[in-house]
Amino acid sequence: MLGIQEIGSYIPGKRVSNYERTEKFGITADFIDEKIGVKSISVRDPSEESSDLCIKAFNNLAAKIKIKKEDVDVLVVITQNPDFSLPQTSAIVHGKLDMPEKCASFDISLGCSGFVYGLSIIQSFMKENEFRTGLLFTSDPYSKIINPEDKNTSLLFGDAAAVTLISDNPKYITGKFSYGTTGKDYQDLICKDGKLIMNGRSVFNFAAKTVPKDVVCCMKLNNLTLAEVDRFVFHQGSLHIVNTIAKRLELPQEKVVFDAWDYGNTVSSSIPILLENEMNGKDNKIIFISGFGVGLSWASTILIRAK
Amino acid sequence: MLGIQEIGSYIPGKRVSNYERTEKFGITADFIDEKIGVKSISVRDPSEESSDLCIKAFNNLAAKIKIKKEDVDVLVVITQNPDFSLPQTSAIVHGKLDMPEKCASFDISLGCSGFVYGLSIIQSFMKENEFRTGLLFTSDPYSKIINPEDKNTSLLFGDAAAVTLISDNPKYITGKFSYGTTGKDYQDLICKDGKLIMNGRSVFNFAAKTVPKDVVCCMKLNNLTLAEVDRFVFHQGSLHIVNTIAKRLELPQEKVVFDAWDYGNTVSSSIPILLENEMNGKDNKIIFISGFGVGLSWASTILIRAK
Repeated sequence: MLGIQEIGSYIPGKRVSNYERTEKFGITADFIDEKIGVKSISVRDPSEESSDLCIKAFNNLAAKIKIKKEDVDVLVVITQNPDFSLPQTSAIVHGKLDMPEKCASFDISLGCSGFVYGLSIIQSFMKENEFRTGLLFTSDPYSKIINPEDKNTSLLFGDAAAVTLISDNPKYITGKFSYGTTGKDYQDLICKDGKLIMNGRSVFNFAAKTVPKDVVCCMKLNNLTLAEVDRFVFHQGSLHIVNTIAKRLELPQEKVVFDAWDYGNTVSSSIPILLENEMNGKDNKIIFISGFGVGLSWASTILIRAK
Repeated sequence: MLGIQEIGSYIPGKRVSNYERTEKFGITADFIDEKIGVKSISVRDPSEESSDLCIKAFNNLAAKIKIKKEDVDVLVVITQNPDFSLPQTSAIVHGKLDMPEKCASFDISLGCSGFVYGLSIIQSFMKENEFRTGLLFTSDPYSKIINPEDKNTSLLFGDAAAVTLISDNPKYITGKFSYGTTGKDYQDLICKDGKLIMNGRSVFNFAAKTVPKDVVCCMKLNNLTLAEVDRFVFHQGSLHIVNTIAKRLELPQEKVVFDAWDYGNTVSSSIPILLENEMNGKDNKIIFISGFGVGLSWASTILIRAK
């Protein structure tokens, strides 16, 4: 059975401190510590393209686990900040990694729900095509489109990438997925004239209202109760949104992961970056994951330990 | 079993004649009639966004067949010219069509191989998630990125969109798929600074060399001989590339479709536009389809009549 064998990630070393921007944006340290939960954001070097972040994540994965390139059947990149509008970034990654010609590749354009969607898309594609080894990349460096003067976005989003190895020798397998879209609200998170514009209040209200309902729906689909879940890994939109969702569901605080303090909201990479830790050396039998944001769009599933 | 139930398409009414541009580009009428096979290209109105082309294709589909919006489980858009870099165009289409909240949606970024890939991606995603009704849109209006002074591209590419209804009441089901990528050649078709640049000779040589091999590979995968195929629907890159592939495979001319005379190479919409005719009122039991281009990337499969 296909599932997640291992995850590699890459967070660029450069940081921009939010404490040093309190005056500029008229915010307090409490706002950083209690609301957004981001002390500093990670920023790529401008010479690092989205595909380069993927390569660095891959190198970190390959340092942990041997990957035979000739075995890779499919390579998927989730991004809304590709190197170029065309070709697809997956082709560039394919070329830079010198992957075999028979390796299928495509990009998925989704934001913060992208990793969860991507797990279902790549696994079902692999199953149907009888593939055994796949790489699911997430790389969406928002520094490309952030207006540094925009308080709503420039304190929040950090750059990072991750790669998830899908194979028939998994550590975790996925359960059933729930999905949803409210496309009529697509303007709430949009890139216009090369700049990201976010209606923070609308996006917050959407997540606070929709995600708890979706968690319940996903639990039902999987015949599970909240008490049976060991860890809840929500997209790291902000500390406040993760806390709000947890509170509405009355989840025990120790089961809910938040750890974007040092790098920020890394869009579709936020969940795999956390899973890399949660999947290894911990006693997590069932992990719940949920992504939500750009679209507006959301998706949830559970991960079940396979061995 | 899931498969293609029906296809709707939309080709904007405006045409730019290539015969009227022979002097400008220093070409002959023979070049138009015998090499590119495009007498005029279709051009969208600048007010028509990629999502709008999708809506018009959907309206043409809905005029042929009743689609209950509340039944639509997933909506996929294949494009490399989205309305915005984010959100995904599928969310915008979801909003404009007032689709239900439970409808999953995502974009796939692929070029001329996109429709064939998309068929496998959406069908496998639907099967795994137990979905019964899906819409696969292709909308990649290259007029957004064509430099009108560029002979290599501006005589060739036309604007169009298509939507393919995937359901458990199909006219045609798909066989096995073959795929490939040569990402190291990604610069051969690229959009830089908002303008499309194509190395026509390289792309031609790639297609002439790779596609015939892939056809043979796909036939083998499906345990079929070329003689058993009723129609070959290749991506309409140009008349010359379709003829070259057909000649190398020694295919009977009457089995090979070329019909881009009046609108040009419509990227990922070229195959579904032709299939809309080939699937209806004709005696085609087995149709071979193959897409190739941007990436460089290719994919092939067969369609088998289900009823």
